[in-house]
Amino acid sequence: MNMPPTSEFFEFLRFPSISTDPAYAPQLAACADWLDQKFQRMGLESQVYPTAGHPIVVARSKPKPGRRTILIYGHYDVQPVDPINEWTTPPFEPSVRDGVVFARGSADNKGQIFSHILGVEKTLREKGELPVNVIFLVEGEEEIGCEHLGGFLEEHREELACDLMVVSDNGMVARGYPSLTYGLRGIFAMEVKLHGAESDLHSGIYGGMAPNPATLLARMIATLHDEQFRVAVPGFYDAVVELHDWERAEWARLPLDDDFFKAAIHCQALMGEAGYTAAERAWARPTAEVNGIGGGYQGHGTKTVIPREAFAKLTFRLVPNQTPAEIEAKVRAHFTRVCPPQVRLEMVAGHGGEPFLCDPHSADGKAARRAMARTWGVEPALTREGGSIPILDTLRRTLGAEILLLGLALPDAACHAPNENFPLENLEAGIRMNQALLEELAGV
Amino acid sequence: MNMPPTSEFFEFLRFPSISTDPAYAPQLAACADWLDQKFQRMGLESQVYPTAGHPIVVARSKPKPGRRTILIYGHYDVQPVDPINEWTTPPFEPSVRDGVVFARGSADNKGQIFSHILGVEKTLREKGELPVNVIFLVEGEEEIGCEHLGGFLEEHREELACDLMVVSDNGMVARGYPSLTYGLRGIFAMEVKLHGAESDLHSGIYGGMAPNPATLLARMIATLHDEQFRVAVPGFYDAVVELHDWERAEWARLPLDDDFFKAAIHCQALMGEAGYTAAERAWARPTAEVNGIGGGYQGHGTKTVIPREAFAKLTFRLVPNQTPAEIEAKVRAHFTRVCPPQVRLEMVAGHGGEPFLCDPHSADGKAARRAMARTWGVEPALTREGGSIPILDTLRRTLGAEILLLGLALPDAACHAPNENFPLENLEAGIRMNQALLEELAGV
Repeated sequence: MNMPPTSEFFEFLRFPSISTDPAYAPQLAACADWLDQKFQRMGLESQVYPTAGHPIVVARSKPKPGRRTILIYGHYDVQPVDPINEWTTPPFEPSVRDGVVFARGSADNKGQIFSHILGVEKTLREKGELPVNVIFLVEGEEEIGCEHLGGFLEEHREELACDLMVVSDNGMVARGYPSLTYGLRGIFAMEVKLHGAESDLHSGIYGGMAPNPATLLARMIATLHDEQFRVAVPGFYDAVVELHDWERAEWARLPLDDDFFKAAIHCQALMGEAGYTAAERAWARPTAEVNGIGGGYQGHGTKTVIPREAFAKLTFRLVPNQTPAEIEAKVRAHFTRVCPPQVRLEMVAGHGGEPFLCDPHSADGKAARRAMARTWGVEPALTREGGSIPILDTLRRTLGAEILLLGLALPDAACHAPNENFPLENLEAGIRMNQALLEELAGV
Repeated sequence: MNMPPTSEFFEFLRFPSISTDPAYAPQLAACADWLDQKFQRMGLESQVYPTAGHPIVVARSKPKPGRRTILIYGHYDVQPVDPINEWTTPPFEPSVRDGVVFARGSADNKGQIFSHILGVEKTLREKGELPVNVIFLVEGEEEIGCEHLGGFLEEHREELACDLMVVSDNGMVARGYPSLTYGLRGIFAMEVKLHGAESDLHSGIYGGMAPNPATLLARMIATLHDEQFRVAVPGFYDAVVELHDWERAEWARLPLDDDFFKAAIHCQALMGEAGYTAAERAWARPTAEVNGIGGGYQGHGTKTVIPREAFAKLTFRLVPNQTPAEIEAKVRAHFTRVCPPQVRLEMVAGHGGEPFLCDPHSADGKAARRAMARTWGVEPALTREGGSIPILDTLRRTLGAEILLLGLALPDAACHAPNENFPLENLEAGIRMNQALLEELAGV
């Protein structure tokens, strides 16, 4: 394998571009400037656009008429590093162990977007030109909800006009096992709180007469699923697009059986909707999950109180064609109906994001698959993922072009966690994939 | 009303005799010595017994043959004062406002036991002797589980031999509305924990396949009661002694309807077992209460995790003839049966205490009722209470004598809470009650 030079990549990784913490704003600006200069050195037209938050970098090859335009989206901001003491080496001092780079942002998303940048650079160096027109759109607020990208897209819709978008901000099935990801789940978050008496009560004096919000909340949470772990909110599945036979067949051949997942998460048995495999449930079926539950005494031992309130933090993962607004209405109606009269129900909606689905059998999808097969020597898997990238829907709606998701992170990349990592062989493969992809897309 | 002198009472209240904090051990010892000297000044034989914890004070009148012996139990230790900033005046600097003394321990139990002491002192002063032989047993570990009293009782069983015990460490129905309390509930505590995956998981990546201990715990908690809020643990009611008709009739005439309790705890509706009034449920029916529930994200907003574990802290209040051991076995069997295979169940038993019941229609019970009627000018209510005083069972078993509970605290005494208080009129009434009680008991 012809390993890419890592010194530039490490420069990129050393910026502590933690977008959620305003204290790092200067480092994000410096990182955007560094990218801008990199693009200019490659011979691209590049510009840094300030926003009310962190800047957006846009770079483009000199447009050649008659060629297709491909927009490559990525982000240079990263997650916080807590818990810092669980890192083997400092998160912003890249360290290579057994050919794997350990650093915050190495997989999410600096390594992935940088492999595209290096691919374009290599093609330009080797051929003097690109087979397509390329636009890089690299933002600094992906980890905090892309607050300013939507408005920017509206404002720069014409300059960003393209035939197709490419995003590598997700995962491969396994090492050496590429995948074209054609679907993601959406999300809707809601906190449910029950209020009982005005204060915590003595469970001896009032036990048996006072409303117990913890008991009642448990009963309400228990109504979220039936015995088959189907979500029991009325109408929840109304808009759900069922899996196609080809998808189930495609996923059945992946090495992702129950034992694989049980070993991955170290549990004694998996759980979920009857009638679907684990991958089907996580990638293409909607869920209702309790992310947190609390109320009453949390300390050691016993405290004989009846809690005055209890809460559950819920997220619902959505699949086409569910929408956050639809699910919010149905969940609100459900909890309102099942809430007992002894407590006051409070529901606070959190963030929402639309699910994403595209056609991997389109001409562009097939071109991407050929590029991946050329890069890795194996046919890519056609997969969906269970997570959510809400900005994809905004990109597609605003720019009116389809999106291909070609993830380069491994399942153990530890994105958002300590010891995030990215193999140098994936950086190298990403460079070759970019070169092959632009060639294949040019011919569509 | 002939108000008692308060200076001695205030001396008693000024000892910060917080038994749970070892730093206060010297103050508990000083308080015990102070009591000992008080008893000696009254002409009683008194002795302070050291224990491995806080001392026990025993005082007795000079025994006269042919007279009955009455043991009066109380405690000089108090609860901690947190949250200290919610006290209007300092907890160990007694303050009288509108005839009510505010101080930690004023109601629980210093005011109540001190009224008995002053009653005995007054009778001795007025008559030169008591109509019965009296033993005072005043300990310093009631608020922390009476750890050393059981052994002390075994060791001093003969010296403490008595015909009847009297305890004032509980409440009256309302101001001027005395009650003879003939029943208390027992208790059994258990923490239930469910373990899923090895660590918290991303709810996008694994939602729909990973076990969710919070969801499953809610389903298990929901099996604790049926739709009528009867405890649904199989066999839970097997040993329960049903309420007698006279008890229901007695309680029905008390001013304790749903509106009273709703106003007391500020809730929109009461909850509990169908077929019983609120007082019946809280005093004479067993319960299963969630005292605390927790698992997963507890902070602000959303964190999209599947918790690796979830817990519920439970207490079961017991009524005659349920026992903690019986209920533990039934609850363990129930949770073991309903626990789903996706999670590992952990159950940790906490403390237990037997329920208490005596006969208010016994000759001694009737004597106590006459004494209360003489004191307040109204017939006392015959009540039970929902809380637990596990030491009563130990006292009764070890010394082989019955116990009468004649509470002097008002419902708003704020025992264990900031601004604990005790009206001076209750101290005065307690003195008269003690005098009348010893007279009435002498004639039985």
